[in-house]
Amino acid sequence: MKKDNKNYHMTADEFRKQGYAMVDWIADYWSGVEEMPVLSQAAPNDLFNALPNSAPNHSEDFSDIMQDVEKHIMPGITHWQSPNFFAYFPTGASGPSILGEMMSAGLGVQGMLWSTSPACTELEMKMMDWLVHLLGLPKHYLLENAGGGSLQDSASSACLVALIAAREKVSKLSLNKLGGNSVDDKKLLAYISTQTHSSLEKAMMISGLGTDNLRKISVDGSYAMQAESLKKQIAIDKAEGYLPFFVCATIGTTSSNGIDDLTSVGKIAQQEGLWMHVDAAMSGTASICPEFRDCNKGLELADSYNFNPHKWMFTNFDCSALFVKNKADIINALSILPEYLKNAATESGAVIDYRDWQIPLGRRFRALKLWFTLRHYGVEGLRHHIREHVTLAQEFATWVEESENFEIVAPHPLNLVCFRHKDGDAVNEALVKKLNDSGDLYLTHTKLNGEYVIRLCVGQAHTTRKHVEKAWELIQAMS
Amino acid sequence: MKKDNKNYHMTADEFRKQGYAMVDWIADYWSGVEEMPVLSQAAPNDLFNALPNSAPNHSEDFSDIMQDVEKHIMPGITHWQSPNFFAYFPTGASGPSILGEMMSAGLGVQGMLWSTSPACTELEMKMMDWLVHLLGLPKHYLLENAGGGSLQDSASSACLVALIAAREKVSKLSLNKLGGNSVDDKKLLAYISTQTHSSLEKAMMISGLGTDNLRKISVDGSYAMQAESLKKQIAIDKAEGYLPFFVCATIGTTSSNGIDDLTSVGKIAQQEGLWMHVDAAMSGTASICPEFRDCNKGLELADSYNFNPHKWMFTNFDCSALFVKNKADIINALSILPEYLKNAATESGAVIDYRDWQIPLGRRFRALKLWFTLRHYGVEGLRHHIREHVTLAQEFATWVEESENFEIVAPHPLNLVCFRHKDGDAVNEALVKKLNDSGDLYLTHTKLNGEYVIRLCVGQAHTTRKHVEKAWELIQAMS
Repeated sequence: MKKDNKNYHMTADEFRKQGYAMVDWIADYWSGVEEMPVLSQAAPNDLFNALPNSAPNHSEDFSDIMQDVEKHIMPGITHWQSPNFFAYFPTGASGPSILGEMMSAGLGVQGMLWSTSPACTELEMKMMDWLVHLLGLPKHYLLENAGGGSLQDSASSACLVALIAAREKVSKLSLNKLGGNSVDDKKLLAYISTQTHSSLEKAMMISGLGTDNLRKISVDGSYAMQAESLKKQIAIDKAEGYLPFFVCATIGTTSSNGIDDLTSVGKIAQQEGLWMHVDAAMSGTASICPEFRDCNKGLELADSYNFNPHKWMFTNFDCSALFVKNKADIINALSILPEYLKNAATESGAVIDYRDWQIPLGRRFRALKLWFTLRHYGVEGLRHHIREHVTLAQEFATWVEESENFEIVAPHPLNLVCFRHKDGDAVNEALVKKLNDSGDLYLTHTKLNGEYVIRLCVGQAHTTRKHVEKAWELIQAMS
Repeated sequence: MKKDNKNYHMTADEFRKQGYAMVDWIADYWSGVEEMPVLSQAAPNDLFNALPNSAPNHSEDFSDIMQDVEKHIMPGITHWQSPNFFAYFPTGASGPSILGEMMSAGLGVQGMLWSTSPACTELEMKMMDWLVHLLGLPKHYLLENAGGGSLQDSASSACLVALIAAREKVSKLSLNKLGGNSVDDKKLLAYISTQTHSSLEKAMMISGLGTDNLRKISVDGSYAMQAESLKKQIAIDKAEGYLPFFVCATIGTTSSNGIDDLTSVGKIAQQEGLWMHVDAAMSGTASICPEFRDCNKGLELADSYNFNPHKWMFTNFDCSALFVKNKADIINALSILPEYLKNAATESGAVIDYRDWQIPLGRRFRALKLWFTLRHYGVEGLRHHIREHVTLAQEFATWVEESENFEIVAPHPLNLVCFRHKDGDAVNEALVKKLNDSGDLYLTHTKLNGEYVIRLCVGQAHTTRKHVEKAWELIQAMS
C-alpha cells in the first residue's frame, strides 16, 4: 500500500515490511519495558515544541516516522505495561488482545447496525454471554432473557448510559402515574457513596440532572456505603418532595477497593423503586475465580452492572462491559432511527443494533480482542494470573503490617493495598514523589479520612513476586 | 508471550510469529477484498449459534482461533474497505493508520491525564493544530489561542460535548443575569434543520434537554437550512418565553450532502446569543483542498466545529476532531478532579488533561494513527485522493443526468450523489435490494421530500474509476 505512480496508498508489500517491523517493535518493547523509567520524565511541551507546526506537504518514509517515534514519542510515554506499574488501576494488554486490535483495524468495519457487519454484533453478543458465565453473574443478563450486555468505551460511559436509562424509566412511570404530567427533573435524586467514582458525578453533569441532585452517603470503616444512612437520606429527601430514582453501588472503589453490600443497598433500592447500578470496573474481574465471588451477593437486585475487561483482564482499552436486566430500558432511552439507517434486518426486529445501547453511533469491532484473549488464556489461565495478583497484594500487605514505619489503612480484599508511613502526610507525599521520580516504579495516592495514603495495585499482566518485592524494598529504602 | 510453565502469557516469540501472520492476513485481506460480496449475506444468529456458549477452560492455540475467523467471522463481515462500498459515508483505514493502531495497542497507555503519558496528550495537541492548518480553519482553534482541538470517538460525542458546553455556558450567564436564579432547563431551545444528523436529537435526549426542546428548521431546494425560517422561529419561541441557546449547522448532511450557509446562520446565532456548532463529519475533509473551502465561509462565527478523519481521511475509526473557540467553555462543563487523579502537572496548570474535554475518563493513544497517516500521505497525497473521489462522483452524476431512466435529485457538491429511477419508490427500493444482494457493490438509501432516493458516496480509499463505472453499469443493468 505505498505510493506508486497512480496513488499515494501504502502498497501491500510496504505494509508487510512495515507491519513485520511494527510487530518486532512491539515485541521488543514488551521485552524491554521493565528497564524503562515507569513515569515519563518529560517536561510540559517537550514533544509539542519538538514537532513541526504543520503536516508535511510530501509523503514521508515510514522509517523516518519510526525514528521520530524513538526520538520524540518514547521519552513522553508513561509505561502502563511495565511490571513496575502499581499506580491507579492498571490498563490491560496482552499478545492476543493486541492481535485482536490489529485485526479490528485491518477489517475496518463499522458495527453501528447489525447489517453493517453481523459478525461485529454477534461476536459481541456471544462474548457478553460468555462474560456472564465467566463471572457467575445473574442469568437475567444473558441475551436469551430480558437483559443483555454490550461493550462500551469506559465505565464512565457505562454509568452514564445506566443513569439515562433510569431517568427515562422513572420519567415514563411518573408520566403514567401523573396522568400526562411529566416528572420534574429538578426533583430527581441519585445516590452514591463518598467513595463512588467521579464518573457518576460527571454523568449527573452530562445528563443535566446536576450535581446538586446527587447525594453522597457516608461510608463505614471499610469504606462501604452505610445502608442505614442511605435509607434515612431517602426518607428525608422524599419528605422534602424529591423523587429518589437511582443508586450506584461499587464493588472495589477506586480509592481503597471498598466493597458495598449489594444486598442491603439493593433491598432499599427495591423498596424505594430506585434503579441500582453496580460499578465493578476494576474488581469485577476477580469474580472469574469462584473464591472471590462473595462480593457479588445481592447482585441479582441490580438493574445494571459494569466491569472493565480493559483493566484487569489483559484486554486492551477500550473494552468495558455493561449488562442490563431489561434491555428495553436502555433501548427506550437511546434509540433513534433516521431514514438513512433503516434496513430490512432492523425492521424485522430479529437483530440487535448496538448503536441503541450507547452514546455514539459508530462502533469498532471490539469483541475480537476479547474473544482472542479469552480463548488464548482460557478460564484457567485467567484464574491463574488473577489469583497470583491477589496473592502478591496480600503478601505485600503482610510486609507492611510487619514493618515498623508503615501501616495498612484500609481493608485490602483483592489486589489493591492502601498504606502509609506513620510519620504523616508530608513524609508520604515526599516518598511518592521520590519513588516516582526514580523511575523504578510508579505509585499513586488517594486521601482516606482526610489523610494522604499510598496505593499499590498489583494488576499489570507481567507483574510477579520479584517486582512487588523490589517495590517494597524501594519504599523502605527511600522513606 | 505464550504460556510456559510459569504463566499463560503469549511469549514474545509466539507474538512475533502470530503478529507476522496477522500482518500477512491483513495485507491479503486488502488485496482480496474487492472480490468479496460487499454486504454480508449472513442470516441473523448464524454466528451467534455457531460459537460455543462459554469461554474455553483451557488455553487454545492461536492457529485454531484464526481458523474460526475464516469459518465464522468472515461470512459475517460487511466489507467497508471494499472499493465497491458506496453506502452510508465510508469509514477510513489505510496502511499507516493500521500501523498506528498497532503501536497504540502495543504501548497500551491510558492518556486520561497529561502525566499518564505526556506524548499521548502532546501529540494529540500537535495533530489538532496540524488539522487547523490543513483544513484552513479559523486560527482561534489553535491551542496557542483561546480555543483548541481534541479527538473524540465520534461526531455524536462531539456534538454532545458541544451541546453540554453551550448548556452550561448559557446557564451560568443566565445565573448571573438573573441574580442567582438558575435558568429553567425546560425553556432552553436548540435548533437544527430537518436534515441535521440524528446524533443531535440523541444529544438532546442524553443531555436531558429533551427532543421537545429541539426545533427543526425547514430547508431550501439544496437541503440547506433556511436562515429566514430560523430567525422567525427564534422570534416566535422568544415571544413564548423560551431561551434559544444552540444551533447546529451542517457542512455536508448525511442524507444528501446539503451545505448550510454558515454566514447567515452564524449571524443569527451571534445576534441571538446562540452557540453555533458546525457538523462537517464527512465533508470537512474536502477542505484539505483549497478549491473546496467555499463551504467554510462564515466558520469564524462558529463556537465549535467537528469533522471525522475516520470518514474520508484514511484514518481508522475512531478518530473524530472537535474544535472549540474557547477551551474554557468545554472544560467548565466537563471537568472534575477527585483526589486520586490529582498530580503535580495538573496542579501547575501548565498542561492539558484531555479527560476534561470529553465524556469518558480513559483515552486511547489515537493521535498516533493520525500522525502516521498525515506523514505517509503528506498534504499532496491527501489532496490527490480527495480530488479524485470528487471527480469520480461528479462524473457519475453526469452519467445519471445523461441517462433516460434515472435522475439526479439533489445538488452534489462533493463526493455524494443522490439519484433515483424515474419509475417511483417501489422500483428504486427493489433496485437497491437487488444490487446489494448481488454482493457486487453496496449502496444505501434515504428519503428526500418523502421520496425514496439512492445514495452513492465515493470515499473508500481504493475506489477508482473502474469501480464507479462498474457500479453504474450494474445500476443500469439491474433496473
